[in-house]
Formats: sequence, structure tokens, C-alpha cells
Amino acid sequence: MTNILINYQKLHETTRDLFVAIGCSRTDAILIADVLIAAELRGIPSHGIARIIDYMAMYEARRINIQPKPKVVHETPSTATIDGDNAFGMIPGYMAMNLAIEKAKTCGSGWVSVNNSNHYGIAGFYAMMALKNNMIGISSTNANPLVAPTFSVSRFLGTNPLAVAIPAGKYPPFVADFATTPIARGKLAMMEKKGLKAPAGFVQDKKGYSSDDPAILKDGGAILPLGGDYEHGSHKGYCMGALVDIFSSVIGGANFGPFVPPQIPYLPIPENQPGKGLGHFFGAFRIDAFRPASDFTRDMEKWIETFKQAKPAEGHSEVFIPGEPELRNENKYSVEGIPVLDKTWSSIQEIAVKLKLEI
Amino acid sequence: MTNILINYQKLHETTRDLFVAIGCSRTDAILIADVLIAAELRGIPSHGIARIIDYMAMYEARRINIQPKPKVVHETPSTATIDGDNAFGMIPGYMAMNLAIEKAKTCGSGWVSVNNSNHYGIAGFYAMMALKNNMIGISSTNANPLVAPTFSVSRFLGTNPLAVAIPAGKYPPFVADFATTPIARGKLAMMEKKGLKAPAGFVQDKKGYSSDDPAILKDGGAILPLGGDYEHGSHKGYCMGALVDIFSSVIGGANFGPFVPPQIPYLPIPENQPGKGLGHFFGAFRIDAFRPASDFTRDMEKWIETFKQAKPAEGHSEVFIPGEPELRNENKYSVEGIPVLDKTWSSIQEIAVKLKLEI
Repeated sequence: MTNILINYQKLHETTRDLFVAIGCSRTDAILIADVLIAAELRGIPSHGIARIIDYMAMYEARRINIQPKPKVVHETPSTATIDGDNAFGMIPGYMAMNLAIEKAKTCGSGWVSVNNSNHYGIAGFYAMMALKNNMIGISSTNANPLVAPTFSVSRFLGTNPLAVAIPAGKYPPFVADFATTPIARGKLAMMEKKGLKAPAGFVQDKKGYSSDDPAILKDGGAILPLGGDYEHGSHKGYCMGALVDIFSSVIGGANFGPFVPPQIPYLPIPENQPGKGLGHFFGAFRIDAFRPASDFTRDMEKWIETFKQAKPAEGHSEVFIPGEPELRNENKYSVEGIPVLDKTWSSIQEIAVKLKLEI
Repeated sequence: MTNILINYQKLHETTRDLFVAIGCSRTDAILIADVLIAAELRGIPSHGIARIIDYMAMYEARRINIQPKPKVVHETPSTATIDGDNAFGMIPGYMAMNLAIEKAKTCGSGWVSVNNSNHYGIAGFYAMMALKNNMIGISSTNANPLVAPTFSVSRFLGTNPLAVAIPAGKYPPFVADFATTPIARGKLAMMEKKGLKAPAGFVQDKKGYSSDDPAILKDGGAILPLGGDYEHGSHKGYCMGALVDIFSSVIGGANFGPFVPPQIPYLPIPENQPGKGLGHFFGAFRIDAFRPASDFTRDMEKWIETFKQAKPAEGHSEVFIPGEPELRNENKYSVEGIPVLDKTWSSIQEIAVKLKLEI
């Protein structure tokens, strides 16, 4: 596998044009491109343009509504629920995060759940939307079930990420964006391709025994929650994943756990679903909701300074603030171009040919 | 070490009387006893009556205000901050959670931060207060710094727990209450006493190398974040611990990270503290904030049924819902009596003698 470098603006235009070509509105197509290219820039290619291939397959299987009209279906002063109308997840996701921000303006905090949605890209994109308003942003989503609860072999949870973005005054923001598992599905696939073994604590076999086979999911295995096994606190990772699941589904009426609709068309939609589509959950806090903004900012700057001055362990040269590595990627890739696997690019070119689009 | 069994009501009365004897109001003393005995009943003795010893030592060192007047110092419709007036943490904690619940009644959600506080017992106690109002409750706190960020040797974070309680209709509630580390300080001390080694991924030495010595904290070592090492996702545990720290401190004006005042009197209070005391953060959501309550309850019941039916791994007989093991302890210990280490009980008896109290 080799990488080619592609300018991020070019990649954004291509992505936009592909979604316009299947019938998305220009606004929606730009938003989808915004989220996918943000992932590429931040160095998270598992959630970047490679997803175009899955998204297009989902569209062809008629599992996505490309002309959606998401709408608010329930509301209180600080909360709301949006029905995503089975859109690509970015469309109700963006609408929901903006509504959370609006509610925070009047209430101090705002919280919006989304049901009837699909894969929404990186959780961090939405959390970071709050930063422009000098607010704290929160974003989470449930996902394809691949993770077994502690002591179980049932694949009942997704990698269920949580993202929180916190403005930090004169410093770059604190941005945590992490799956509630030790590893994402994409990294296992990469290990398999490279012929590597999976480290202990990543996956288990169909009986629940520890496995080092990165392909074990094809044989009834499962990803483990953050922590790995019970001794190392996997019940805490299970709690985290379960909380993201419940907040993304039961709260607002989406499907939970094993009922979450797979975001790849060759896997069937589960029967007897209790809810609508896949779900997300968003939140926003004004930084002056708890004390004057200047006090918050002064102390958040001091928090960053303090943790940046943590003494590195032997063999390490620095300690990172959450979001710092991704920001460095962004600075690098926006100038040098985004490294794209040639195989991924060929697949996207094939889609373009089918859509009679020159890229 | 042997255990003696003591009736939980007797233990509650004793605890109450001890705090009344040092000058706490009867109301405050009952509340402190409520929280400590709740920990004992739920099988979390590290946060139970053993803490009386530390609390009394903190009082004797004049590091606690036993006649506090906590007050609201900042407010928006859905948020507030309480200055804890350097009380035992239970007093502003209880006040804050009740205020979050009141705000949720009118706004859909309510959020209250507390500064100038101290150790507040188990996080779950406050989260569970929401259940009586058929609401979701959230509680977190920062704590004595013992945990090193990923790639660091600096002890900058506490075990920083997060608790979330969710009502589940006809079933017992979902109650997650967990530290953001693989292990709590108390368990390391227990391993040391028993002459056991610590499993890999629990602690590191002063240079940052993996260690199996449960006493390594006395020699500059640190507890690791949930995940253990970077390969196993410790940066995710670090993110979690950092988020609990920031929400418990920077948001409302308490001290963060290494500046958190130790809750044991032989450790000095850090110099140049940026905030006031130790901090907590509380939240509440109405279950009908996002859709009708009956829809939420129906699906939460179905969530519980689904996860309870997860297939156990080989060698295990059942899969647990978060909070289920603690509820079983409660049912058992409330009938059979609470097992108390004889050494702990002797220490408490000594305190009683000093306070001229018969127990």
C-alpha cells in the first residue's frame, strides 16, 4: 500500500461533487465533505474519504434518504430531539449541535438528541463547533455493534465515541475525541492486512477467551471495552460504552445496542428494532454559565500550562494535551497535502466514473 | 484481618453521633452518615466508615469547616455554582444535586458545580438522588493527585470518578459509578498488606516504567489511567480523567490537577493554588426532556432486558447491568449486617473514646 498526497481543498471539492452527483443538495454535500475532510486533516483516515465508499453503497442499497428534512420533534428550554429523517448523519448532527448552542445561549446549557440517523463521521467535528461561540461542546454517537460487555460474548455495543471540546483562551482548545474501546475496527483490519498479531486486551474469541487474531471478528469474536479484561477495569469501559449507547438512543428514540442499523449495506438491518435508525447526542455549555468567562479562561489557560509542563516518562520527550497531536496533523496536512491510500483513491475514482464525474 | 458484622442502622447512628460530637449540626451529621453508610451497603468499604478516621484527622488539623454555610454564587436558568465554604463534601454536594434537580424541573436539564469543597464520598450517592424524581443523575469529583497522564511521570490527576444513574421503570436503575483508572488507591494498599504483586497496567515507577510493586507510590511512582499504557488506550483514560478534573474545577473555580488539596492531613496543601478547595460537578435530566416519559421507560426497560440476556463468556454465569452487583450487596448487607474490618472498628472506637462518646 502506498500513499498519494492530495490537496485538502481538492479533496473537499471532489467529495462535495460526488454527493451532489447522487442528488444531495449542495449545502448537504458541502457539510458531508466538511466532516470527512476534517477527519483527514486531523489524521483520522478511518473516518475520512474512505467512508465515501460505504456511504455510496448505503445510498445504492436505498438505506439513506438523500433529500432529508430533519425536524425538531420534542423540546424543553434546554433540551430537544431531532428526527434525522434517515439522512447521512452529518445533516441532523450539524443541525442538532447548532440547536444545542442556541439553547445554551439562553439557558446556560443546551442538549439535543438525534434519532433516525446514520454514521456521522468524527464525533469531534460537532464538539468543536461550540468553540466558535466560546462554548464547551459535547458529542457522542452509537455505532455498529462489535463490542462485548464484560463477561459476555455478545456483540452488543459499538465503539461508541465521546468527544468534548473546551476553549482554552490563548491556547489551542482541549479536544478529547475517543472511542470507548482500546481499539477501533479499522485498526484491526490494518493489522490483519499487515499480518500482525493483536496485542492482549484488544479482542476475544467466540467463547470469550483472549485472542491475538485481528480477524477474530469474522469468527464470532468481539472487540473488548476500554480496560480489556475485568481485572484491568473493562467493566468501566463497558459502563462508558453503555452510557454513550443509552444517551444516543434510549433518551431520544433511536435504536440501541444490537439493534443499531449497520452502516455497511451487506449487513442486514436487525429485526424488531425498538427505535428509529442510529442515534447521536450533543451538548453545549456557555463558559460563563458557572462563573465569569474571564475567570474560566484564566484557569483553563493555567490548566493547559500545568499539564504541558508534566514531566515526560523516560523515553518520551513531551506530554500531550488532548487534541494537540490532531492539531499538528492539521497544520501539516493542510500545507503538505493529505496522504491517501492509492487503493482508496482508485475506489473513489471508480465511483466518480460511474457517476460520470471527472475528478 | 477479620471482619465483624455490624447492623447498618447502628453504624449510621454511630457515624452521625461522632460528627455531632465534634460540632456538626444534626442535619449535616445525618447526611455524612447517609453517604458513608450507602458506600458500606453497596460494598465499597474504601469510601465507607474507614473515611471517618481521615475526616476526623482533617477536622483536627483545622482543614475542614464544621459549621459551613454553602451558598449559590453564580446562576443561569440551567446552571449554577455553589461555594462549599470548605465543608465536608457531602453538604455542598447534596445541596448542589438538589439544585440541579430543581433546575431540570423547569429547564429539562440542570447543572451545578461546587468549589471550595472536600471529599464527598461515593459519586453514585448524588447521581442516585435523581432517581427519586424519575430523572437521570450525574455526579463527578476531582481528588488527590496520584495518576500520571499518558507518557508522563507527574502525578497530576486523581482517580476522578464519574457516576450516572438512569431510572429503568420496573427494573432496578442503571447505576454506573467508576474511577477513571484501572484501580483505586485503596486496592493497592490492600495488595501491599497481603504481599501481592500488582498486575501489569496498574502502576508505573518514578521513571515511567511498568511496575508490579503495589507500594511504588511511596517511591515516586504513579497510578496509570484506565487502559494502562498507550497501546491499550491509556490516552483515552487520561482524557476521561482530565475531563472530570476540568468539569469539577476549571468550570466552577475549584483547584485542578496537582493543586487539589489532599484529603489527608499529613500531606500539605499545595502552594499557589489557582482555585478554592476541591471541586465537584452534578447534572440532572428529566426523562421526558427528549420524548414522552413512557416511551423512554419502555425502551430503557427493553435495554435492560436485552443486555441482561447477553450470552455469558465461558466460565461466567451471567452478564451484569451496571449497578446490579452493588444492589445485591445492599440487599445482603442491610439484612446480614455490614462487614467491618476489626482494625477499622478499633480506630473508630478510639475516636469515640476521645470524644467521650459511648458506641
